[in-house]
Amino acid sequence: MPLLEASPDRIAAAARRVMARCDELARVSAQPGEIERVYLSPEHARVNRLAAEWMREVGLRSWQDAAGNQLGRIERSTDPDPAAPALMIGSHLDTVKDAGRFDGIIGVLMALEVVRLLRQESDGVSRVPLPFAVEVAAFSDEEGTRFGKALLGSSAVAGTWNDAWWTLADEDGVTLREAFRDFGLDPGRIGEAARRPDHLVAYLEAHIEQGPELDRAGEPLAVVSSIASARRFQLTVEGEARHAGGTPYDMRRDALLGASEAALAVERICRSEHHIIGTVGQLEAFPGAVNVVPGEAHLSVDLRGELDGERDRVWDEISRELDDIMGRRGLRWQAREVHNAPAVRCGLLLQDVVREGIVHAVERRSDEPPVIFSRAGHDAMAIGSITDVGMLFLRNPDGVSHHPDEAVSAADVALGIRALTESVLQLAADRL
Amino acid sequence: MPLLEASPDRIAAAARRVMARCDELARVSAQPGEIERVYLSPEHARVNRLAAEWMREVGLRSWQDAAGNQLGRIERSTDPDPAAPALMIGSHLDTVKDAGRFDGIIGVLMALEVVRLLRQESDGVSRVPLPFAVEVAAFSDEEGTRFGKALLGSSAVAGTWNDAWWTLADEDGVTLREAFRDFGLDPGRIGEAARRPDHLVAYLEAHIEQGPELDRAGEPLAVVSSIASARRFQLTVEGEARHAGGTPYDMRRDALLGASEAALAVERICRSEHHIIGTVGQLEAFPGAVNVVPGEAHLSVDLRGELDGERDRVWDEISRELDDIMGRRGLRWQAREVHNAPAVRCGLLLQDVVREGIVHAVERRSDEPPVIFSRAGHDAMAIGSITDVGMLFLRNPDGVSHHPDEAVSAADVALGIRALTESVLQLAADRL
Repeated sequence: MPLLEASPDRIAAAARRVMARCDELARVSAQPGEIERVYLSPEHARVNRLAAEWMREVGLRSWQDAAGNQLGRIERSTDPDPAAPALMIGSHLDTVKDAGRFDGIIGVLMALEVVRLLRQESDGVSRVPLPFAVEVAAFSDEEGTRFGKALLGSSAVAGTWNDAWWTLADEDGVTLREAFRDFGLDPGRIGEAARRPDHLVAYLEAHIEQGPELDRAGEPLAVVSSIASARRFQLTVEGEARHAGGTPYDMRRDALLGASEAALAVERICRSEHHIIGTVGQLEAFPGAVNVVPGEAHLSVDLRGELDGERDRVWDEISRELDDIMGRRGLRWQAREVHNAPAVRCGLLLQDVVREGIVHAVERRSDEPPVIFSRAGHDAMAIGSITDVGMLFLRNPDGVSHHPDEAVSAADVALGIRALTESVLQLAADRL
Repeated sequence: MPLLEASPDRIAAAARRVMARCDELARVSAQPGEIERVYLSPEHARVNRLAAEWMREVGLRSWQDAAGNQLGRIERSTDPDPAAPALMIGSHLDTVKDAGRFDGIIGVLMALEVVRLLRQESDGVSRVPLPFAVEVAAFSDEEGTRFGKALLGSSAVAGTWNDAWWTLADEDGVTLREAFRDFGLDPGRIGEAARRPDHLVAYLEAHIEQGPELDRAGEPLAVVSSIASARRFQLTVEGEARHAGGTPYDMRRDALLGASEAALAVERICRSEHHIIGTVGQLEAFPGAVNVVPGEAHLSVDLRGELDGERDRVWDEISRELDDIMGRRGLRWQAREVHNAPAVRCGLLLQDVVREGIVHAVERRSDEPPVIFSRAGHDAMAIGSITDVGMLFLRNPDGVSHHPDEAVSAADVALGIRALTESVLQLAADRL
């Protein structure tokens, strides 16, 4: 039995509001004609003010925390208590460069509509009182666009902030510490953003899939089983810079050709695995002159898999292949690991309530909604270190994300709002 | 019979002076600890002043021309006439970034020692009066480091300056026109640098080989037969930027992987040809984020060959291969040709006198000195459009050039000075 009794019209109106606000947020950008909002920027401050306004409009008390996250809270309806644990629902408002308008954003805006529906339900219509507070989190940095380190906002909330990050610098040389102060935040108070496990009931996040599986399956929503295990490496290949005209092939130690073979090897090895995907997103040759054989090349490797062990085995295989390539070409190579996130499993109870939510929201052909693992990282990964997390994915046409063409339909957003609200009500019923 | 009667001690002293001055010029650099002197920079002005001083010291009248080249001239000893045609001997003083200390520079400094010896010869000792004026040219831009267009200095002298170049900009956005004015030159007077065929007897240039052939053959000096035909292209590969986590391989159109295959194809095709060498010196992926499948990649291709037709045939083959690669990967590609220099043959008379010079300078195992073609470009390419050119190559240990380890031995420089002076005397004898 569904617990949410909201009319289709009310849900459709909520979805239209979410779509309109995605458009409104898209106009807050550092780049005219593109979407770019990075951590601790003027655009970050502007969307926090908008989020605060929208939070208050649905009855949430709103504040910006010590890491620049914008939060909002309503107390539980049974025995209101500002110290009572909260169900946190959210995602992030920051973007990559030249971004789409839905990644992260839609999860925050849907959470607001969930609260709106919950309050209407619990203010009389609903049979379900809220046995926990609800907090909406608009995380300030998930993408890591500015400082190269992802999940800064949610890591602060998870209490996993690392003081080594303060000296990270953006491309203008501004350190994270300086940027904090410029934004009006006090680096010395970052610990105040941290929540403890007993503050939270659980964490729920809705997000576009950032992949094509739902679109291919003709399904609007999915339960997320886990968030991919990821490792990132910065590779340096060293050869010898030489004059392009005068150096015969047998004397060349061309770092760029070694790097090119490495990029193709990453593709070849990962393609042969079912659950591993590897990407070389950066590659540059030095000195980078048209008439000089490159003496050095830098490239990045991003590896994702459902299981940590599988991912590590593939990296070992890539490493052996790179030893072969570089040895054959007289090159040296080394890898610096810049990111290592173990897979985060979504809690079984949370997977259950998300499944229930989808079952009640979607007219389904079969009984079971799709269950997929997320190859992309999400704030839920960071929050997973202090509470159980659950995620709901929305169909992402053609799987285009981190790109202006990123899309989601209003109809799917309506289904998602219904499913997410239902999930919260199911969790509430479970807790009563 | 050798015409030069200078003692080995005098030649050795000349070579030591050349080596010491290479060290002195190496200290004139925009980058501490490296060598970098680009066109129209403060370092350019400083080395021009040094060159002028050294020119005057050996009796040359010296001036800076309308393109910032530093020139020096002595009149012929038979019937001195400032309008009489001159044998021009020279090379360039500008460098690539993080350069060696000999490329170009040694040719200018050796020319000064040739003049010193010629004057000592013609001031009594020599049996050979000079039937032509001699000019030493220190060209201001051969490498094209600052504005991306090579041979600016010698092109001005050749009268092949192109007004389209004025809007070329350096990496700070300073245009060539602005840089001219900042240097104290008048862009409107560039035509005054141009020389006509009747101003010149011929052009001679000594240069390090920038390749390993002489070193491998155990030979100190070579006659250059021609300067390589070169084409340069900037390639753009277009695919689609997508999220690295969510995009399965069958939906990717990864521009970087296409570019990597292209770089390896250039190597594979050129390696299968005897007289063609191809280099990808630049490669960059965009947007260049660790977690985004590259949607675009840029790479350069530099092709050199002894014969224009052979070089063009190889480019056609590369183009067909790139069509295959990109078609298979769902990518588009295009090439913009940024440089096309036909091969320049050294004049037969000039090859003869250089050969004579080497024969008299080097104790040889066989009768004939090596004859090689230059895969690198030289000022002689530009000057070749107004007069016959000849070149002498010096052994370059291990062929390292455009690199701080670039080297040449004082002993080889001594042989080169003797050979070059002898070549001039042979040419003089031929003209008397």
